[in-house]
Amino acid sequence: MIVSMQERATEEQIDAVIETMEEAGVSVHRTTGATQTILAGVGPTAHVDLSKFEVLPGVLNVLRISSPYKLAGRAFRPEGTVIEFANGVKVGGEQVAVMAGPCSIESREQIFATAARVKEIGASFLRGGAFKPRSSPYAFQGMGIPGLQMMHEAAQEHGLLTVSEVMEIAQIEPMLPYVDLFQVGARNMQNFNLLRELGQVRKPVLLKRGIAATVEELLLSSEYILSGGNYEVILCERGIRTYETATRNTMDISAIPVLKKLTHLPVVGDPSHGTGRRDMVAPMAKAAVAAGCDALIIEIHPNADNSVSDAEQTLYLDQFEKLATELRLIATAVGRPL
Amino acid sequence: MIVSMQERATEEQIDAVIETMEEAGVSVHRTTGATQTILAGVGPTAHVDLSKFEVLPGVLNVLRISSPYKLAGRAFRPEGTVIEFANGVKVGGEQVAVMAGPCSIESREQIFATAARVKEIGASFLRGGAFKPRSSPYAFQGMGIPGLQMMHEAAQEHGLLTVSEVMEIAQIEPMLPYVDLFQVGARNMQNFNLLRELGQVRKPVLLKRGIAATVEELLLSSEYILSGGNYEVILCERGIRTYETATRNTMDISAIPVLKKLTHLPVVGDPSHGTGRRDMVAPMAKAAVAAGCDALIIEIHPNADNSVSDAEQTLYLDQFEKLATELRLIATAVGRPL
Amino acid sequence: MIVSMQERATEEQIDAVIETMEEAGVSVHRTTGATQTILAGVGPTAHVDLSKFEVLPGVLNVLRISSPYKLAGRAFRPEGTVIEFANGVKVGGEQVAVMAGPCSIESREQIFATAARVKEIGASFLRGGAFKPRSSPYAFQGMGIPGLQMMHEAAQEHGLLTVSEVMEIAQIEPMLPYVDLFQVGARNMQNFNLLRELGQVRKPVLLKRGIAATVEELLLSSEYILSGGNYEVILCERGIRTYETATRNTMDISAIPVLKKLTHLPVVGDPSHGTGRRDMVAPMAKAAVAAGCDALIIEIHPNADNSVSDAEQTLYLDQFEKLATELRLIATAVGRPL
Amino acid sequence: MIVSMQERATEEQIDAVIETMEEAGVSVHRTTGATQTILAGVGPTAHVDLSKFEVLPGVLNVLRISSPYKLAGRAFRPEGTVIEFANGVKVGGEQVAVMAGPCSIESREQIFATAARVKEIGASFLRGGAFKPRSSPYAFQGMGIPGLQMMHEAAQEHGLLTVSEVMEIAQIEPMLPYVDLFQVGARNMQNFNLLRELGQVRKPVLLKRGIAATVEELLLSSEYILSGGNYEVILCERGIRTYETATRNTMDISAIPVLKKLTHLPVVGDPSHGTGRRDMVAPMAKAAVAAGCDALIIEIHPNADNSVSDAEQTLYLDQFEKLATELRLIATAVGRPL
Repeated sequence: MIVSMQERATEEQIDAVIETMEEAGVSVHRTTGATQTILAGVGPTAHVDLSKFEVLPGVLNVLRISSPYKLAGRAFRPEGTVIEFANGVKVGGEQVAVMAGPCSIESREQIFATAARVKEIGASFLRGGAFKPRSSPYAFQGMGIPGLQMMHEAAQEHGLLTVSEVMEIAQIEPMLPYVDLFQVGARNMQNFNLLRELGQVRKPVLLKRGIAATVEELLLSSEYILSGGNYEVILCERGIRTYETATRNTMDISAIPVLKKLTHLPVVGDPSHGTGRRDMVAPMAKAAVAAGCDALIIEIHPNADNSVSDAEQTLYLDQFEKLATELRLIATAVGRPL
Repeated sequence: MIVSMQERATEEQIDAVIETMEEAGVSVHRTTGATQTILAGVGPTAHVDLSKFEVLPGVLNVLRISSPYKLAGRAFRPEGTVIEFANGVKVGGEQVAVMAGPCSIESREQIFATAARVKEIGASFLRGGAFKPRSSPYAFQGMGIPGLQMMHEAAQEHGLLTVSEVMEIAQIEPMLPYVDLFQVGARNMQNFNLLRELGQVRKPVLLKRGIAATVEELLLSSEYILSGGNYEVILCERGIRTYETATRNTMDISAIPVLKKLTHLPVVGDPSHGTGRRDMVAPMAKAAVAAGCDALIIEIHPNADNSVSDAEQTLYLDQFEKLATELRLIATAVGRPL
Repeated sequence: MIVSMQERATEEQIDAVIETMEEAGVSVHRTTGATQTILAGVGPTAHVDLSKFEVLPGVLNVLRISSPYKLAGRAFRPEGTVIEFANGVKVGGEQVAVMAGPCSIESREQIFATAARVKEIGASFLRGGAFKPRSSPYAFQGMGIPGLQMMHEAAQEHGLLTVSEVMEIAQIEPMLPYVDLFQVGARNMQNFNLLRELGQVRKPVLLKRGIAATVEELLLSSEYILSGGNYEVILCERGIRTYETATRNTMDISAIPVLKKLTHLPVVGDPSHGTGRRDMVAPMAKAAVAAGCDALIIEIHPNADNSVSDAEQTLYLDQFEKLATELRLIATAVGRPL
Repeated sequence: MIVSMQERATEEQIDAVIETMEEAGVSVHRTTGATQTILAGVGPTAHVDLSKFEVLPGVLNVLRISSPYKLAGRAFRPEGTVIEFANGVKVGGEQVAVMAGPCSIESREQIFATAARVKEIGASFLRGGAFKPRSSPYAFQGMGIPGLQMMHEAAQEHGLLTVSEVMEIAQIEPMLPYVDLFQVGARNMQNFNLLRELGQVRKPVLLKRGIAATVEELLLSSEYILSGGNYEVILCERGIRTYETATRNTMDISAIPVLKKLTHLPVVGDPSHGTGRRDMVAPMAKAAVAAGCDALIIEIHPNADNSVSDAEQTLYLDQFEKLATELRLIATAVGRPL
């Protein structure tokens, strides 16, 4: 950490700051310039609350040099994390994985029809929501655990893995038998109690970036899961909120290579929520793969226009098939199989 | 709702859209122009999912005319909602209420010292957090229910009301005896299960705007509480995330008069989180009152520099006293007592 | 256009609105619902200032249905615009064009060395700035016309085209002999006088998106050039300002497919300014091509670390060579040669 | 400046950085920690381009400690700048000044009617645009110099000062006889050539914040004018672009106290452009005064609904009169006359 003192800071103020730094466990190196004094603190500062220093008299500003996350940092596992699932599918390795399915599980017929095509097209995960948080209180709210059972059965029949969103601690236990990958939604990215609890689970977690979260905040959130001992976390870029309204969110494709540099965790792109527009899913899925993502998660539906939720961003099955063919070419171009 | 057809939409497409609109319970009026057809749907559309129409063949776009919230709308109670608390204090009436206290309840000494000054200075609510969600997993996480008991005792001693954040459904019940006003934090603004549950409670709720939430989304969230039968909701502007970094958040003062126009619910300003800077709390508190807020919520601490959280935005008690004097003048200037 | 009246609008108010609409040259169709009246205006509304209607008594809101730009709209030239340059290079056709060069032209040696490599690597445009607007008044401000002459000579020697930024109307004339493509920078995207003047020129214009401009505003700005009779406009996505600070700007890759849908004009991606980070240029260049851009513009420098401007986002020549090889694979994967 | 080296930086890399820093004229103090080395550079770094250091091998990041602007900094004139106009009116002193008038000068009748009321109501500046940059190429583009002459005459008749926007260097000279205060619009905030030219003029300049500009960038832009020797600059907050659409821009009221702290220059609030909504002008004008602005600039029109531009945000003269009365009370409450 670096504490810059104000130009007129007194010796007493400087001493007080040095003392407080030492109390926090860092060793202090002082630089006295013609007009300004700078205090460099070296040592373990990840646990230190910098705001305490900002308000000390005579302090101009305080900067953290080392990153505030540790377990999620690339340096912790320079070779990268590869998550291997029961059936041998890997995320974070050479192959680009594809996860696909409806926004909401709606019926046995719907989820089985989807599963069959998902398998046929060559994806490895079946996605589907059972608990649907909707911004309007007057909309369909999901089928719950029975829906997950159906999805699990459909996935089993076709050798697929399942991924579904967990929204509360109380849902973890009942979901366990049916999901291979817990998804944490953008709205829960900073639900720290939920994250901490998922740190105790021994199943991988797909953590979505909050709609206004920075890359650093996403990494800090992952740290909650990792610090519980669950090292199998996948990060997901799914669009951020900006002033632009041509797309529902602005998919921050650059977050993919930025994350690949900062962390060892696999990164997945979600072009469905990332854009909120069916006609933009294909180009953005291709862009995400070209930029280096390890997996894609895409909303599809056997009868997309009648999807009970997210209809406007859901692909028809035939569109998905066509996209999968195109993605294979892009993946090959960046040296990875799909 | 208005459905605009594409220029080359066929008669079959137009008929299909009309049929779908009628199935959704709205009556349709058709306008056929030289190049374009427009379908106006009149009737109850608040429950209709517009995205279903956007994906019908031949549709250019779909617009909702009536607002998607009803109970929160100004038209529902044109005279405005006034919430009256046990001790006679009102929020939403003529008077501007002040809520003050530490970010976190830390000790008996701290909360009693604060309560005494809060009362003396003329505020009516004592605030304090018992469950502290922190973005770093390595920080103080709050005193829990014992902390709330202490705050309640301190408030009782001085005839103050209490306000504290509820973060999970499971906390509602144990918090009930100790809080007069449940606060829902920005990160939980779209935790719809929590909101729905608070709709069943018969205590007022202070709902904070999410860091990237629009005014409309804030109103939709309040609708979750209102639709459960709990009409005592206070909305809170506490800063939004923008590109500007001079302040931690950008306090959207205009949200205050915009909300006062759109809804009958009282509106409170939070200049502490709104700016994240101690030196900006006073000017922004004054701006919020000048713009028409019904209450303020401000972080103060008897020993602000050692506050375990949010130290950088917390007022010293003497600063708060000075501010209260200034606020009284502004409140008077806009025709309201403090 | 659609005018929605307030629920309590009187017949007089409705009549007044109808009259004003008819004066503006649109024919009006009225829909009278149980509680609300809606007026649909059909006709040429691109020139109508909607704000005039928003303030009429009794009006709830006013919406434009047809797009406010015409010449830039995809419908104007459904097959797309292909710009053919003197030496046969085309932008907007099958091939993905590459433009590369230093941020600033600094010396004869620098620009000739760059030109040689640019040609060798297979790009077709040499870029270089002669007038450098810097946010600090204390920085290098460019070599001016003599710099352009040098760049032109270097380009001639290698059969390359030149692109350079024009910042003022007075620069157009002297620049004409030396540039094949005028670039309008992000800060000038709404310098309407400059745009209007460029509409009179018979040379192509590369128009950069403003740092906080919407896609619609970019199209409206292009309309200024097109309406002067210069139909050779190329639009450029170069990053927008958001709350995220991991990259200098957030490159809105989705703007590429959105623009390709809305307009017939070619679209170019600028991953150098789009990210502001050398290590992010390659993945974002690949993403841009995968998403469908017609060209790329990239900052390179024979001695990147000593570039007088934008050093942190400038590629070394060897990095550029490697990238070009990778881009060729991506371009092939989306069915286009590079 | 502070250069933090990467954990694995070699001694050669560290020495190279030190050398480069010394070449740039700063003296270097080295701190060698267990894992990381930090180099503190003390001396005049305002002219140093930090990006040069960021790309040196082994460098983790580079931070500027001192502010990049000097003449605009509060330290340059701790007592604050007070601009005194010909008729004795002061901006930046105790009094809060009011500037009011139409968006565009439209006719002799319009501007004389406005001037009379502006004077009567107690404002001191008459504003009006003569050159109107419009985002659509099909709209009214202003009356030019003849319009300014009319405004000047109207102002003279009533002892008012004039303020009007200058958009190009070529307009400065012809505008000189008619304006007392040059306004630089948001779109030209980074038109550095124009700013530099205005630095040579001996008339005050009102510099508007760009729609996506940070407070720091606004100050850097003012530095361009100041460094030319023109110290009479007034800064203007007029709303920034955010994701919120309830208002056209989000007026960043906190920029007012932030600027008052960072700079000695007077600060003016523009609630008309700040909100883009007539019904929000009054509350936001009051908020701006409560937050400490030195002046307000407000759009008014004798026939607001027929204003050729910005009608939706323009006050009727009677609304303005009522507002002025309310503002007087707020100004008094913060210890300033209006």
